Amino acid sequence: MIFVMKPGVDKQRVDDFAKQWEQKGYSTIVSVGTEHTAVCLIGNTASIDMDHAVHTSDIVDYAKRVTEQYRAVSRSVHPDDTVVKVKDAIFDCHHFPVIAGPCSVESEEQVLTVAEAVKKSGAKLLRGGAFKPRSSPYAFQGMQADGLELLKIAREKTGLPIVSEMMNQTQVPLFEEVDIVQIGARNMQNFDLLKAAGAMGKPVLLKRGLASTLEEFLLSAEYLMCAGCKDVILCERGIRTFETMTRNTLDLSAVPILKEKTHLPVIVDPSHGTGIRSLVAPLSRAILAVGADGLMVETHNNPKLALCDGAQSLDLEQFDGLMTDLRRRAVLEGREI
Amino acid sequence: MIFVMKPGVDKQRVDDFAKQWEQKGYSTIVSVGTEHTAVCLIGNTASIDMDHAVHTSDIVDYAKRVTEQYRAVSRSVHPDDTVVKVKDAIFDCHHFPVIAGPCSVESEEQVLTVAEAVKKSGAKLLRGGAFKPRSSPYAFQGMQADGLELLKIAREKTGLPIVSEMMNQTQVPLFEEVDIVQIGARNMQNFDLLKAAGAMGKPVLLKRGLASTLEEFLLSAEYLMCAGCKDVILCERGIRTFETMTRNTLDLSAVPILKEKTHLPVIVDPSHGTGIRSLVAPLSRAILAVGADGLMVETHNNPKLALCDGAQSLDLEQFDGLMTDLRRRAVLEGREI
Amino acid sequence: MIFVMKPGVDKQRVDDFAKQWEQKGYSTIVSVGTEHTAVCLIGNTASIDMDHAVHTSDIVDYAKRVTEQYRAVSRSVHPDDTVVKVKDAIFDCHHFPVIAGPCSVESEEQVLTVAEAVKKSGAKLLRGGAFKPRSSPYAFQGMQADGLELLKIAREKTGLPIVSEMMNQTQVPLFEEVDIVQIGARNMQNFDLLKAAGAMGKPVLLKRGLASTLEEFLLSAEYLMCAGCKDVILCERGIRTFETMTRNTLDLSAVPILKEKTHLPVIVDPSHGTGIRSLVAPLSRAILAVGADGLMVETHNNPKLALCDGAQSLDLEQFDGLMTDLRRRAVLEGREI
Amino acid sequence: MIFVMKPGVDKQRVDDFAKQWEQKGYSTIVSVGTEHTAVCLIGNTASIDMDHAVHTSDIVDYAKRVTEQYRAVSRSVHPDDTVVKVKDAIFDCHHFPVIAGPCSVESEEQVLTVAEAVKKSGAKLLRGGAFKPRSSPYAFQGMQADGLELLKIAREKTGLPIVSEMMNQTQVPLFEEVDIVQIGARNMQNFDLLKAAGAMGKPVLLKRGLASTLEEFLLSAEYLMCAGCKDVILCERGIRTFETMTRNTLDLSAVPILKEKTHLPVIVDPSHGTGIRSLVAPLSRAILAVGADGLMVETHNNPKLALCDGAQSLDLEQFDGLMTDLRRRAVLEGREI
Repeated sequence: MIFVMKPGVDKQRVDDFAKQWEQKGYSTIVSVGTEHTAVCLIGNTASIDMDHAVHTSDIVDYAKRVTEQYRAVSRSVHPDDTVVKVKDAIFDCHHFPVIAGPCSVESEEQVLTVAEAVKKSGAKLLRGGAFKPRSSPYAFQGMQADGLELLKIAREKTGLPIVSEMMNQTQVPLFEEVDIVQIGARNMQNFDLLKAAGAMGKPVLLKRGLASTLEEFLLSAEYLMCAGCKDVILCERGIRTFETMTRNTLDLSAVPILKEKTHLPVIVDPSHGTGIRSLVAPLSRAILAVGADGLMVETHNNPKLALCDGAQSLDLEQFDGLMTDLRRRAVLEGREI
Repeated sequence: MIFVMKPGVDKQRVDDFAKQWEQKGYSTIVSVGTEHTAVCLIGNTASIDMDHAVHTSDIVDYAKRVTEQYRAVSRSVHPDDTVVKVKDAIFDCHHFPVIAGPCSVESEEQVLTVAEAVKKSGAKLLRGGAFKPRSSPYAFQGMQADGLELLKIAREKTGLPIVSEMMNQTQVPLFEEVDIVQIGARNMQNFDLLKAAGAMGKPVLLKRGLASTLEEFLLSAEYLMCAGCKDVILCERGIRTFETMTRNTLDLSAVPILKEKTHLPVIVDPSHGTGIRSLVAPLSRAILAVGADGLMVETHNNPKLALCDGAQSLDLEQFDGLMTDLRRRAVLEGREI
Repeated sequence: MIFVMKPGVDKQRVDDFAKQWEQKGYSTIVSVGTEHTAVCLIGNTASIDMDHAVHTSDIVDYAKRVTEQYRAVSRSVHPDDTVVKVKDAIFDCHHFPVIAGPCSVESEEQVLTVAEAVKKSGAKLLRGGAFKPRSSPYAFQGMQADGLELLKIAREKTGLPIVSEMMNQTQVPLFEEVDIVQIGARNMQNFDLLKAAGAMGKPVLLKRGLASTLEEFLLSAEYLMCAGCKDVILCERGIRTFETMTRNTLDLSAVPILKEKTHLPVIVDPSHGTGIRSLVAPLSRAILAVGADGLMVETHNNPKLALCDGAQSLDLEQFDGLMTDLRRRAVLEGREI
Repeated sequence: MIFVMKPGVDKQRVDDFAKQWEQKGYSTIVSVGTEHTAVCLIGNTASIDMDHAVHTSDIVDYAKRVTEQYRAVSRSVHPDDTVVKVKDAIFDCHHFPVIAGPCSVESEEQVLTVAEAVKKSGAKLLRGGAFKPRSSPYAFQGMQADGLELLKIAREKTGLPIVSEMMNQTQVPLFEEVDIVQIGARNMQNFDLLKAAGAMGKPVLLKRGLASTLEEFLLSAEYLMCAGCKDVILCERGIRTFETMTRNTLDLSAVPILKEKTHLPVIVDPSHGTGIRSLVAPLSRAILAVGADGLMVETHNNPKLALCDGAQSLDLEQFDGLMTDLRRRAVLEGREI
C-alpha cells in the first residue's frame, strides 16, 4: 500500500506516520520528492481499511493498494485451479459441464420433461428456480418450497444434481438437499446471505451483480470462502450498460481476466446475459472458446408458455442441437462436455 | 398495452388472439396496417406479465405498455402528495427535514456527541448504521445490535427519532423500536426484505440501487406498499456510471421526475452520492433548490477517525454551517427546515 | 409508427390528427381505448422526425416506432449478406480475414518488419495509424502524412492492402490510395466526416463509439451508405461501462444481433476492446466462434517500445501462434482465414 | 509518477531503470518492499506518455500518476479563476449569465422573435444551431451557413452576442464573426476540431461528451488552451447511463469538482441534460445553487413546431418565468444574472 502525502508536509510528521505503521508490524519506506512524499507499506495489507487509514491522518492525500483486497480467492495465494466436483459434473480445465433447465419450476410434468431431455442431450446438472426475484410484485414469484420438491423428484428420476437460487438466509434448511446453492445477481452483495450460504458446506454458484465490478465480485466470493465454502463457482451473466438492444451486456472478457486473478472456476450464463433466444447458441460457442469452465442455459419444454423469461429460453430441440455442436467443438479445446 | 404482431400474420389468427384477451375481461382494438398489425388492450394491465404474454403466442412480435406497471405508488392513482410524519419531522412540500448522523455507530460517546450537536444545528432525525453492508469481508461490519441500543439511548437524550439500516428479515424484531427502517442501496431488490420491512407498520426509507432504473425503484416501493407500508420515503443516493472522479453520479433529475410519477416524498443523500466531503455542501444547496423533500447527510464528530466513509462525512462545525445556510435558503422555497 | 394520445383527448381531434397524416400519404388506424387512444401510421415512416411529429401536436403523449429508422443498412430491405472484397481479403460468411499491424506507424523499419511478419502468419490486411486521436495533447499524435507513405511502401513490398484512420474530411485526398478508410470510435458520430468518407467510393471500416448504442451505430453506417458507400464494414471494439479492470467492455453479443439487423459484415477488435495483451488470444477465439466476419488485432515487432497502446499489442510470435490456432478452429466454422 | 515493479525484479535492474529517468532530468526515489519495489519520479511528468513508459520496460508492473496530466487548465498551475467576458456576459463567480435560444435556427422570424424575447427576459447571450449533428441522416440537419446569417441579424437587432456549434474545421471562416464557438458533445474528442477552434482567438464553449470522464473533459480543454485559446467555458450537459426515463443523466457534482480542479468557468445545460421540458426549471434552480457560472437553456417561440428537440425547449413565457425566479435566487448567491 502506498500513501501519498499532501504537498508541503513536514518530514518529521511523515516519519512519525511511518513509525505508527511499523509499530503495527508493517515495514515502511519513505520516498521524498520535490512535490510529493510517499510512504510505502509492506506486509499483508489486505485487512487494512484504506479509507479509514487515509482519514485518520491529516497529512495523507490518498492511498493506493499494490496488492488486492482479497486473499482466499486470489490466485497469487492459491496458484492451482480449484476443481469443483458435483457427482459427474466437474468444473475444471478438462471439462465443460452444462447446467440446463427452466428459469422457473412450474409443474412436475414440466420439470421432469425438461430434466429427462437435457440429461439425454448431455447436461450434467439441472437448474430450476423455485424462489424467483422479480422486479414487479405482480410478476410470478415462483413455486417456492414446492418447486424445490419437484426438483428433487427430477433428480431422483434422472440422477442429475440440482442447482437452485436461495433468496434469504432463513431458507438454509430448505436448501440442505440442493446440490449447488445459487446466489442470484441481485443478491451478490447481500452479505448476510453470502455468510449463510458459505457456511452450508456445499458448493455455491455466485452470479455477478448487474452493476458489480470484477473486484466486488471477487470480494463477494471472498465472503463465501471466509464463511467456510471451498467450492465457489463464479458465473458471469451480463452487466447493465446503456445498450438497450440486449437485456444486458455479456462481458466475456471477464472469463480470462478472472481466471488470471482467481483459482475458482468461471462459468457463463448467456440466457440472462443477452435475454434473446437467438443469441444463446452463438454466444455459447464463444463461451466455450474463450476458456470458460462451464455453461448455464435456460431450457424449457415450451418457451412460449414459460411463466418467466420465455424469450431467452431454448426449447428442447434447440438445446439438443446446441449440445451436439458444443461436443464437436470441445474436442478442439481438450475439454469433455 | 399494445401488442405488435409479426409481419404477415393471418387476420383470423390476430382476431383469435384478441378474443382470448376479451375472454379475460379486457377490451381490445385491432389495428391492421400494411406492414404490421397491432392489438391494443384496454383495462388494468398492470398485473399482466408482459414477457409471458408475448411468448405464449406465436404471432406477437413485441408488446409495449401504455400505462405503468406500478399502481399503489403511482401519482395517477393517488394524485395528492403522501405526507410522512415522524415526530417533528414532516416529509412534505412545506418542510425539508434533515437526517444527520454518522455512517456507523461506533461508541456511546460518539453517537451522543453527534446526536446532540446535529439536533442543536437543526437536524430532525438521527441516522446511524448498526449493521453495515461492506464490499470486503475484512472491513468493519458495524456494532450490530449494540449499535441499535446506542441509537435508542441517543434518541432518549435528544428526542430525535432514529433511522437505521435493516439488512435481512430476521432482524425485524430488533428494528421494532427504530422509527424509520432504512433499506440500503444494495438491498433495493432484496424482495424478501422489502416484504418483511413493508409489513412492519412503520415508515421505510428506501434507497435507490446503484444500477437501478427509476422504474425499478418505483417497483421496489410498490413491494413495500403491497406489503402494507403507507409511509415510504424514496432516497436518491447516486448511481454507478463510468465516471471515477466521484464515488457515484448523483442523479438530481430523479427528484422532479419521481415527483411527477409518484406521490411519495423524495429525499437525497449527497454523502454517498458523491463520496467527497467538499461536494456535500454545494450539492445540498442544489438538493433543496431542485425540490427534494429532505436531505440525509453523514456527520461525524471526528471524520478522520471514522471507521467507515470518513472521506464523505462532514464534521460538526461544517454541518452547522451547512444548516445555517440551508435555513436561509429554505425561506425562498417556502419550506421549513 | 404508433402515436399514443394524451388521456381525455376529444375523438374529433384525434380523427383530424389522423387525417393530416393521410394527406401526407400514410394510411392510419385509430384505436380507441378506455384510457388511451392510439393512431397507427402505416407506410415508410423512416424519414419522419418522430420527436418533431410528437411536439407539433397538442394531443400526442408519445410515439413508438414499429419499424427501424435505418433503411439502406437494414437486412429487412436487403436480405442477402453484403460481401466486401478488398484484394484477397473477403469479408463474408465463408472467410475470416485478419487485419493486423501496429497501433501507430513509427518508422519504415517497424512497419515493414511487422507487415512482412503478419503477412507470413496469414493476415490479409495491414493496419497502421498515421493520424492518432489521443486524449492528451501531450501524447504522440502519429506520423501523419509520412505514416501513410510508409504504409504504401509496406503494401508495395507485401501486397497487403492497407487500412488507416482518417480523422477529418480535409484528409480525403491523402486517403485516396488507402484501401480501406477507417472511421475511429471517437468519430463515429462526426457526421461530416461520415459524409466525406462515404463519398470516396471505397470501403469504409466504421468503429463503434465508446458510448454508442447499436441503433446509433447502424444509423452512422446509414450516413455512409446514403453518401454512396456500398462497402461498409462494422467493427465492435468495446464500450465504456463502470468496469475498470479492462479498458473497455467488449460486447460480443453485438455480433449476432447486428447480423440479424443488417446485411453488412461485422468484425471485432479485441485489442482496444480489452486493452490487455493476455486477453487478446482467448477473445479472438471467441470472436471467431460467435460468428464475426473478421478480426482486427494490434501487432507490434516490439510492444514494449511501442509509442502507443503497447500494453494491448501482440508481438510477432504471439500473433503467429494466434493465427495457427485460429486456422485450426476455422475449419470447424467452415471459414477460410 | 510512481512505477511499481514486477515481483522479484533484481535490485540492480531497478537502479538502472531509475538512472535512466535521472538522465532525462527527473529525480527518483527507489522504495524496496518485501513484495514490491516502487520507483517514484519527481519533476514535471505531465508530458510523459505513461503507457509507453511502462511498456518500454520489462520490469515495470504498472504506473500511477501523482499529478494530473493537464497543466494549462489546472487550478494548481493557475489558482485564480479565469473570467470570460463577452460583451455584457461575464462568466465568473459574481455573475450568472444565461444563454438562451432555439436548438435550431429555423427562420428569420423565429430567431428574431426568440432573441428579442429572451433578451427582454434577461438572457445575456443568444444560442442557435445552424449546423446540427443528428444521429439519423433523415433528421433535419440545420440551415447551415444561412442559419449563421440569421443569428448575426438577430445580434444586430438585440445586441446579444451569439453562440453556435462548429462541426468541422473547414467551417472556421464561417465562424469568424460568431462570438462564442461551441464544440458539441459528440465532437468533444474531435481533436482536429479542437485545435482549429482553439486557434481562432475567440472564446470556446466546450460541451462534455456523452461518455467522457471529467479527466478527458479537462484534457480536451487542454487541447484548446494549447492551441492558444484563453477563454474556454466548460459545459456539463448530461452523460449516458443505463437510466432511460431521462434522455441523459445530468451530473451536477461535476460543477463543484471541476471548479476545484480547474480555473475555467463551468456552466450547465439542463435542456439536453434531461430532455424533458418540465425538468428544466427545477434543475436550473439547482444549477444556480450548486455554484455553476452560467446556464444554457433551449427556448423556442413555439416548441410544438420546433424542428429539433422540441420536447426539451421552454416556450417564451416559461423562460421568462424561470428568469424571474432565478433573479430572485441570485441575490442569495451574491450573483448578478
